[in-house]
Order: sequence, then structure tokens, then C-alpha cells
Amino acid sequence: MANMNKPLATLAAELRNGDLSAQALMEGCFEAYAASEFHLNAYKTWAGDTALIAAKQVDQLLKQGYDFGPLMGVPISVKDMFALPNLPTYAGSKSALGAEWQQPGELVQALRSQLALITGKTHTVEFALGGIGVNAHWGTPRNPWDVHHHRIPGGSSSGAGVSLCQGSALLALGTDTAGSVRIPASVTGKVGLKTTVGHWPTNQIVPLSASLDTPGVLANTLEDLCYAYAAIEKQLHKQPLVIPKLNDCRGVRIGIPENFFWEDADKSVIALVKVTMRRLEQAGAQLIPIQVPLCAELFADFQQGGLSVPELAYFLSSRLPEKLEELDPVVKMRVQDGGAITALEYLRRKALVEQATQQAAVLFEQVDIWLHPTIPISPPKLTEIAALEDYRRANMLALRNPSIANLMGLCALSMPVGLDNLGMPVGMQLTAAGGQETKLLAIAQAFEHLLGNGQQLMGVCPLF
Amino acid sequence: MANMNKPLATLAAELRNGDLSAQALMEGCFEAYAASEFHLNAYKTWAGDTALIAAKQVDQLLKQGYDFGPLMGVPISVKDMFALPNLPTYAGSKSALGAEWQQPGELVQALRSQLALITGKTHTVEFALGGIGVNAHWGTPRNPWDVHHHRIPGGSSSGAGVSLCQGSALLALGTDTAGSVRIPASVTGKVGLKTTVGHWPTNQIVPLSASLDTPGVLANTLEDLCYAYAAIEKQLHKQPLVIPKLNDCRGVRIGIPENFFWEDADKSVIALVKVTMRRLEQAGAQLIPIQVPLCAELFADFQQGGLSVPELAYFLSSRLPEKLEELDPVVKMRVQDGGAITALEYLRRKALVEQATQQAAVLFEQVDIWLHPTIPISPPKLTEIAALEDYRRANMLALRNPSIANLMGLCALSMPVGLDNLGMPVGMQLTAAGGQETKLLAIAQAFEHLLGNGQQLMGVCPLF
Repeated sequence: MANMNKPLATLAAELRNGDLSAQALMEGCFEAYAASEFHLNAYKTWAGDTALIAAKQVDQLLKQGYDFGPLMGVPISVKDMFALPNLPTYAGSKSALGAEWQQPGELVQALRSQLALITGKTHTVEFALGGIGVNAHWGTPRNPWDVHHHRIPGGSSSGAGVSLCQGSALLALGTDTAGSVRIPASVTGKVGLKTTVGHWPTNQIVPLSASLDTPGVLANTLEDLCYAYAAIEKQLHKQPLVIPKLNDCRGVRIGIPENFFWEDADKSVIALVKVTMRRLEQAGAQLIPIQVPLCAELFADFQQGGLSVPELAYFLSSRLPEKLEELDPVVKMRVQDGGAITALEYLRRKALVEQATQQAAVLFEQVDIWLHPTIPISPPKLTEIAALEDYRRANMLALRNPSIANLMGLCALSMPVGLDNLGMPVGMQLTAAGGQETKLLAIAQAFEHLLGNGQQLMGVCPLF
Repeated sequence: MANMNKPLATLAAELRNGDLSAQALMEGCFEAYAASEFHLNAYKTWAGDTALIAAKQVDQLLKQGYDFGPLMGVPISVKDMFALPNLPTYAGSKSALGAEWQQPGELVQALRSQLALITGKTHTVEFALGGIGVNAHWGTPRNPWDVHHHRIPGGSSSGAGVSLCQGSALLALGTDTAGSVRIPASVTGKVGLKTTVGHWPTNQIVPLSASLDTPGVLANTLEDLCYAYAAIEKQLHKQPLVIPKLNDCRGVRIGIPENFFWEDADKSVIALVKVTMRRLEQAGAQLIPIQVPLCAELFADFQQGGLSVPELAYFLSSRLPEKLEELDPVVKMRVQDGGAITALEYLRRKALVEQATQQAAVLFEQVDIWLHPTIPISPPKLTEIAALEDYRRANMLALRNPSIANLMGLCALSMPVGLDNLGMPVGMQLTAAGGQETKLLAIAQAFEHLLGNGQQLMGVCPLF
């Protein structure tokens, strides 16, 4: 079996110089899947067979001197919100959506045109409406970091982080409307980038919120994330992108929010993030206390359904009315309640988001990034959230911090800082101004260089 | 008194070579205002005194060799929806809005930085919600083309066209959310351009619809309109713009909608527009029958308040709640009814607009412009619309054709084609794809060259 524990850039070079074959790489992913999927349940639909066929073609083409791009031959899992050819889209719901949801959109095409290997469609919360990863129809993927208990995998991209831990894919495509890429990354010890609204196309992704949906990528390390981001950017925007390699962290201005993001946080989460902050400061970064405006107001709206729930309610009622009856009762209740607001209330919420977006932009004149815990708590056991009220509290607490970046028009990522008192991964979120993905990734990469990547920080996930 | 009956380009040259002074030009405007304003009621606030002082400064500066731009010394009236320094903004309502509505926005600054002469603030329908120009608080400006009866001036930029007929200004700034620049232009025998959403900034314009509001310009001739458009573009986008002069109309592909736009039209209106179409065809233009999709659906929503009424209701309730009580009862009823819809209904309407925008863009692959009557009827007498139901019917009939360009993300203009059986001006609308203002103006200018401008077609307005 191929050794996949190397940076993507190294694997890509080995694919090209013949030290590694795409077939061997994909066979390794297939074996990892077969060995653990029954336990972990990362995928709604596994596509390993076709990926293996594609891998053989990649090897042939590379031998003949063809090169379709940096992701050629790289195994990637795709959240089951994206349309993919010949694979049904369930979007976490009870039955497959119509055939139009097998027409790939621009972002998937950016992967396919490079001959990336699509390993399958990973589980998602039903219509992505939820932050901790549960799914009543298809079961909840298992967080691989707890061997003994079924802990949440983070959501809504609930299979994405698990597929990386599992080793069935080396990258995972997700979507993030209020934290759905960063939360799974945080609780599975991976890295995850949420792009700025509009930066990457969302066509042929089942919509949750037309206002706030963004695609994103999860990876094992920031080095890999930068590699993937640059590869996708190059394909989408037809020009090469270089993410600068910073020599160190000196002079990086890190805004530390004094309000909101630390409330109700577990002690070990706070301790891990604060130790990390001190290490960054010792390495020459500047820690600047900031007040992030309007957080409480934005989150109050969010808890009432914000923009997402009315927008989802509109999408379902106009495009998939038959789905309304099939919804998980918890999701159904949220859609019904949150969809029943007036236009004036919707416009009020929208205006608050616009106001917050403007104020956030001003705040970024003083700092390069913000830093805070991605989520303030350990990923709970499923048994701890069996009661509806416990589920709701945990769900909102998981979404609280990440959602602010969505509601302020920003880009953000989560990267691991260590294991908490339960031995579960803890992530910190770095947030940058809208459109500043390159800067964000460059800074985060310098941080990873200083702090160590996930595996160096936390060792190997106990299941593997 | 200065002879102002010349193209703006000629007047601008004369200002610079000393044949004309800005003072004489502005004095001419002042005299025209003084002679007819009592009868016509074009302005809410006249600013002729300060414009005269500015005119003298313009003359001094030109003599010293300064040149601040093509609109330097040109008298321009501004609809009372735009904030202007030191002049109250009423937006057609009963009392002045707060001092923040005296901070000019970008578009007004583009005029002021060229030392254009702002003649004052012209009347508007209350919060621009209406297409025929009535105002219960400040009286309805009089359409100068009927000496004997008080006919509507078109709205909502109700004073804009009248100010041009009057001769108190040579250009008029307006706004157009569903026809409010093109309707006044049409019924006063002038030309008026509605820009594409987002093409010109709307900051510090009292909003009617955040989704659909657009600024626009009225002028005496298309030649003048092109001059003004290029001057504003240059200032806003910091690069010179050349509107190509077409030699003739050969090869211009004119889409003639077969549906919707001709329904319920007066015979003489149809006859005038059809004669014009024949002349264009004889001159080598191609007439291509087209079906414009979704018109009936869009207009059905529009009649129920569309996007504008809920958006206005939100603006008023959030920013000017005290205004809600002061509204003209007719406006108040529309705001209350139209503002009470659900978020789902609002999102449904918004999605239809987006769908129509996409379909319209496709239609413009076959044709350069669309052509149809701007409004299908003669401007009614005030006495004919005294009853609420008569007002409503006339209002909706006036808005029907122009509103489609707003609801499909297009740019459009109205230009005169002659006088109808009542001796009132008739306009035809030319519509181009979103962002294609330059092409639209170039084609319209070629049409004017062939057909004659308003004065050549219809003679001088009887009052002057």
C-alpha cells in the first residue's frame, strides 16, 4: 500500500516521476474505506470503483506526458450537496433529488477537468441545516477520535473530516453557510477553509442560503490546503496563484476578540488556544485586543433562523415541495417556524448582515486576521444530545463562533491546536477580510510551520 | 438673454471661447423659471441664487484657463430624492428628512466636482412610489404641452421633464425604479436614460427599492444625453468614454416584442411608433419579431407591490418610522398592503426577477435593442384620475411597459416620435442588455439623426 502520509505536493511529484502510481494511491484509499467505513459511516455513496478506473487512466496519461493540473490523480471526497455525474444527490434527505442534480457545477468541473479522483459523496446534515452533523435518515458519521463513544463528527459536512481521518481521501470538498466546513475540521483535527461569498461559484450545489452559502475545502494540513486552494483557483480563474511563504510570524497583527467568542467555552479549549496565542506572540506576532461589533445581534437573528432558514424554506417550497413532508421532524420544525417570517423581518435581518459586513471591513484596517476558538466545546457524544433541547443548545453553541464570519462577509479557516481534556481535537479559527483568502492562507501556513501540523501536535488519530 | 437652443457641446465650446458666459446662461434659466414656475410647479426647492453665484465663479475660472469638465457651467436640475448640500430633502413627503440627507452621494459629487450649476430640487412623487407624477402634499407639476388642462407630467421624477420644457435647466437628474425617468421624458417630449442596476452609484439617494433603484438623466435631445452621459461616466469611472457615432441605421437589429407592450395602447400611439419603425426599416435597420418571456408574470407581481413596496416599507419602518403616519393615504395604503407579505413571497418575487434577468440576457444574443411605446396612453388630465380606481389604472398602465426593463436587469431610454391625437408627446422606448448603455446611446443617436430630434419632430412646446 502506498504511503500517503506525505504532503500533496510530494505525492504529486512522485506521481509524475513514477515513484507512485495513482492506482496505488487510490487502492490505498479504497482499502482504508473498506477497513473502517462500516464503523465510521463517512459516505452516502462510495465511488471507489470508478475512481480506480480513472486512476489507471491518470497513470497512462502521465506516462504519455500529459498533465491536467496539480490535482490530477488526487483522491477527493465530495459532500453530498454537490451535483456529480452518475451519482445521486440526496443532500442528506430521505430520497434522491431529481436528475438535474447530477449535472456538475463549475467547482466540481474544476476538479474533474484536472482528473482529480472523486472518491464518492460524503454524508451531510439534511439540506445542510445544522452544525454538529447528525442525520436521522442515514445515520451520523462517527468521530474517529473517540474509540469508545459515538461522538459527533461536526456538520453539516459531517462525512468530510471523517473521510480524511479514514484515509479514503486526501482532500474533502464541503460547503459552509454558518461553519459547516470549519466545525468538522475542528472536531476531527483537520484544517478547513471557508471562502468568501461569491469567490467560488455555487451553481449546482443544493442551496441552503442563497445569501450565505460558500464552498470550502478540508485537508490534513495547511500545506495541503494551500496546495488545493491554489490548484482550484488556477482552474477557476485561469491564472496561476502563488500563496507567499512567510519566513516567520513577525509583524502579523492578530486581533483577539475580547467579547462573544470565549463565552461558555470549556476550560481546556480556552487553555489550548491561549497557549497557542502565547507561542505566536513569542514568535513576533502582535496580539491586538478587539471588539467585534454586532455579534450578539447577528447571532440572535441567526438563532431565529436568520437568512438561511427562510431561504431554504423558499427553495424547498418552490423547487422540491414533495421534500417538505419527508424532512426529519426536527429540520421540518425549523423550516416551518423560520420560514414563516414577514418580508420586513427578512429585510431587517439582511440589512443587519450588510451593516455588520461594512463594520467588519473597517475593523480589518487595524489587524490582518482574527483568532478565536473555532468552537467553544468538546464534540459531545450522541447520547448527550438525544433530547431535543440538548441537541439545540449544542448545535447553536457549535455554530455560534463560526457563523459570525459568514454573517460579516469574511473568509476563515480552522486549524488544530491540540487535544482537549477528553482527548478530542481542538481547532482555532483564523478569520480574514472578504476576498483575502491568499493572505489568510499565507499567515496560517506560517503558523503551521511554527506550531506543527495536526499530526505533529496531536499524534495519529487513535483508530488508525 | 442667451440663446440656449443649441447642443450642450456647442454651449460648452462657447463658454470656453468667451462667446457665452455661464452667468448669462444661468440668468436665462432663472428668467425661464420666474416666468413660468407659478404655472408649472416644477421645483420643490429652487436654488437659482446659489447657482448664479457659482456661474460667476465658473466664468472667472474659465477665463483663468481652468476646466473642471464637460458639465462645467451647465444648469442641471436634480430630483428631490438626491441629497444636496444645504438644501432640504423632502423626497416628496410632507416634511424634510434629517440632516444626513444633505450629504451628497457619489453621483451628485460627479456633477459638483465639474462645477455643474445645480438649479434646485425638482418635485417627485412621495418616496418615488408612482408613475404618473401626482403629489398630494406639494401639488402635481403641470405638463407644459397642454395649455388648457392640467395633464400629468409623468413620474416619479415629476419635475424633471417639466424643468427642461420650462428652460430652467438643460439637463435633469432623476431616478428610475420602474419607469420614473422614462415616463416623464415620454410625456414631456424629452429623452431620458435609465441606467443598469449597479452601473451608477445610488448612495445618498433616498431609496425606494434597494434591488431595483437606478439613477438616470433627462435631456432635450439624444445628442445632449450622450454628452451628459459621457461626462458623468468620465467623472465616475475616471476614464474617458467615447460613444461611437454610427453613420446610419443599417444592420441594427431591432427586436419588436409581439406580446404585452402593445396591449391597451391608444391608436395614435401605436400609429406613431409603427411609422417610426417603418422609417428605421427603410433606412436599413432589421425589425425582428420577438417574444419577451415572463412579462405577464413579472407585471402581476409588480401590481401586488413587487420588490419595491416591501423594500420601501422596510426602509420607512427602520429609518423613518415617523414618516409612516404622514404619508399620503394612497401611498400609505400601498405601503401597508405591499409591506405585509411573507419572506417566502418576497423571495419568490426576487427569484422570478433573477430568472427573467437571465432569460432577457439570452434574448439579447439575437437583437441589439428592443423597441416599443414607452407608455401606451396619452398623459391623462388630473380630473380624469381623481377617482382612486382611475388613478390606479392609469398609474399601472403608465408603469407597465417601462417596468419590464427594471425587472429584467436592463438599461433603456425613451425618445420622442411625435404628437398624438391630443397633441401630447409620444415616446418610444429602446432597451438594451444590462451594462450596454454605450451601445444603446450610439444606436439611439443614429436614430435621432435619421428621425430628427424632439423639437424637429414636434415643434416647440406650446407654452414657450
